[in-house]
Amino acid sequence: MSDPRFDVVGLGNAIVDVLTRTEDAFLADQGLDKGAMTLVDQERSRQIYDKVGPATECSGGSAANTIAVLAGLGGRAAFMGRVRDDELGRIFAHDIRAMGVRYETPPAADGPDTANCLVLVSPDAERTMLTYLGASVHFGPGDLEPEVIRDARVTYLEGYLWDPPAAKEAFRAAAREAHAAGREVALSLSDPFCVDRHRDDFLHLIEGEVDILFANEDEILSLYQVETFDAALQQVRGHCKVAALTRSEKGSVVVAGDEVHVIDAAAVDQVKDTTGAGDAYAAGFLYGHTQGHDLATCARIGGVCAARVISAMGARPDDDLRPAVEDVLRP
Amino acid sequence: MSDPRFDVVGLGNAIVDVLTRTEDAFLADQGLDKGAMTLVDQERSRQIYDKVGPATECSGGSAANTIAVLAGLGGRAAFMGRVRDDELGRIFAHDIRAMGVRYETPPAADGPDTANCLVLVSPDAERTMLTYLGASVHFGPGDLEPEVIRDARVTYLEGYLWDPPAAKEAFRAAAREAHAAGREVALSLSDPFCVDRHRDDFLHLIEGEVDILFANEDEILSLYQVETFDAALQQVRGHCKVAALTRSEKGSVVVAGDEVHVIDAAAVDQVKDTTGAGDAYAAGFLYGHTQGHDLATCARIGGVCAARVISAMGARPDDDLRPAVEDVLRP
Repeated sequence: MSDPRFDVVGLGNAIVDVLTRTEDAFLADQGLDKGAMTLVDQERSRQIYDKVGPATECSGGSAANTIAVLAGLGGRAAFMGRVRDDELGRIFAHDIRAMGVRYETPPAADGPDTANCLVLVSPDAERTMLTYLGASVHFGPGDLEPEVIRDARVTYLEGYLWDPPAAKEAFRAAAREAHAAGREVALSLSDPFCVDRHRDDFLHLIEGEVDILFANEDEILSLYQVETFDAALQQVRGHCKVAALTRSEKGSVVVAGDEVHVIDAAAVDQVKDTTGAGDAYAAGFLYGHTQGHDLATCARIGGVCAARVISAMGARPDDDLRPAVEDVLRP
Repeated sequence: MSDPRFDVVGLGNAIVDVLTRTEDAFLADQGLDKGAMTLVDQERSRQIYDKVGPATECSGGSAANTIAVLAGLGGRAAFMGRVRDDELGRIFAHDIRAMGVRYETPPAADGPDTANCLVLVSPDAERTMLTYLGASVHFGPGDLEPEVIRDARVTYLEGYLWDPPAAKEAFRAAAREAHAAGREVALSLSDPFCVDRHRDDFLHLIEGEVDILFANEDEILSLYQVETFDAALQQVRGHCKVAALTRSEKGSVVVAGDEVHVIDAAAVDQVKDTTGAGDAYAAGFLYGHTQGHDLATCARIGGVCAARVISAMGARPDDDLRPAVEDVLRP
């Protein structure tokens, strides 16, 4: 097989984040689940937006964040996801292309606005997200670029894609296309509530279609409906080829058949905003994996990327992560 | 005269900033004047935007920044400036209202898009700005709210308003309205190139209509076409009631007839982005002034606000400046 043109192609919701600081009392008043991602309609999104303080807009989306960080590390990346031909859509496309990512999904000429995610950052740096899926909902099998998927070592899918029905179909088609070309498929579980909404689908998918699974502790407990991390670890073992489980300040655990690695978290001076921690971990891990590094090294690169992203506001780092990754790779 | 409802009302261009880091070589390649604000059309703006890295969007505009910072300090503030009824227009309106500012200029239903300013931040933290004035250009006398101007201690005008012809008319009308009600008029010169484009107008205005003038060193030298700061100082003395002249790391000099104060700059750990330094200085100064503090105290408050804004990316601070201002006011 010839050397593929891309290391990773990501499929996900194309979203612009609207970041603002908030107090926990506000979350309680508005009946919002702290730390979770909730799907909302445009009206509810605007209703909450009207009540929060000044905000900053920057490109987001779970898989899109992963792809942007991976490209920043030097990985060759592509992304597929749908925006509208509006101002936020132009911002999304600009930012991901500016990282050197191939992004050619045509913007929708009509229908709902480009998706946005209101990210409410609490004083303890935890983020609560309200997502208006907008134009992302219409991402479907017709938006796939099969030749790009066949030409990527890994096809990376975000669990959030399972919410819009057309995207779900695209998701399955992409996994089939990748496997038919002898490539790998990776999945991030995205959110415990997302897992809860689609548990049987995810269990089935992981069994048949997922080579590399990314999940945090809440998500993996929700997936297997177990009480302890170790119980989840025993279940996931053998369920997919590789599972990378992130545990915040406890670091991460990678399991692949008989192989298990427990990797400590990278040092962080001050956590400012946990938005994008999991996305950045996946980016670092997949960068290491597509460069041929062993699983423990992949987990360490992922941890360094996550640590850097949570040290600043926003889901994508605004400085170069390569020196930190080079430190990990130095013998 | 009854106690006015507002401390300061600002009139200015309603702009959303698009912030991105850049190298000086890029500025040179594109023929951009480092440190200056250049007016561009939408095509040129998009041409440069397509070449820069990922960006962050946040509300800006010179007088709007001043008003937002002033409101954050506890000042009672209003703003007038024109956006289009588009996504960036909604962002601008949200952010300024979220600071507690009265902002009721109706968005334009057609015509050019909401203004944006591409802010290219160099490694030395200097910013180079490309402004597409868009909908701001149509701000005119019909957008003034005379009752708000009459009800504000100070009407604050940005020099940039002198570029769009209709805004210039609004500017003169607002100054007349304020003075007729026995209020003060403040002007910020905004930019040396702006001063160069409109020198005679500004000299005339300052003579007849300006009570408080804000200018940085480049601007005041350009205004009087002199070579040294001291020569400018001697000229501005007596030209308007109060002049507050900012000198970056040298602090500021305030002159009011026979009274002259030379105030050192406030300490800054690391300068990250000088965007909004002058705007924040004016906010702190006007906050002090409308609270009845003496000129030296006003200058110290201005300096503290500027120091905080340049310690982070963007033109508006993302944390509370009040504790720092309270330190200045503590006897």
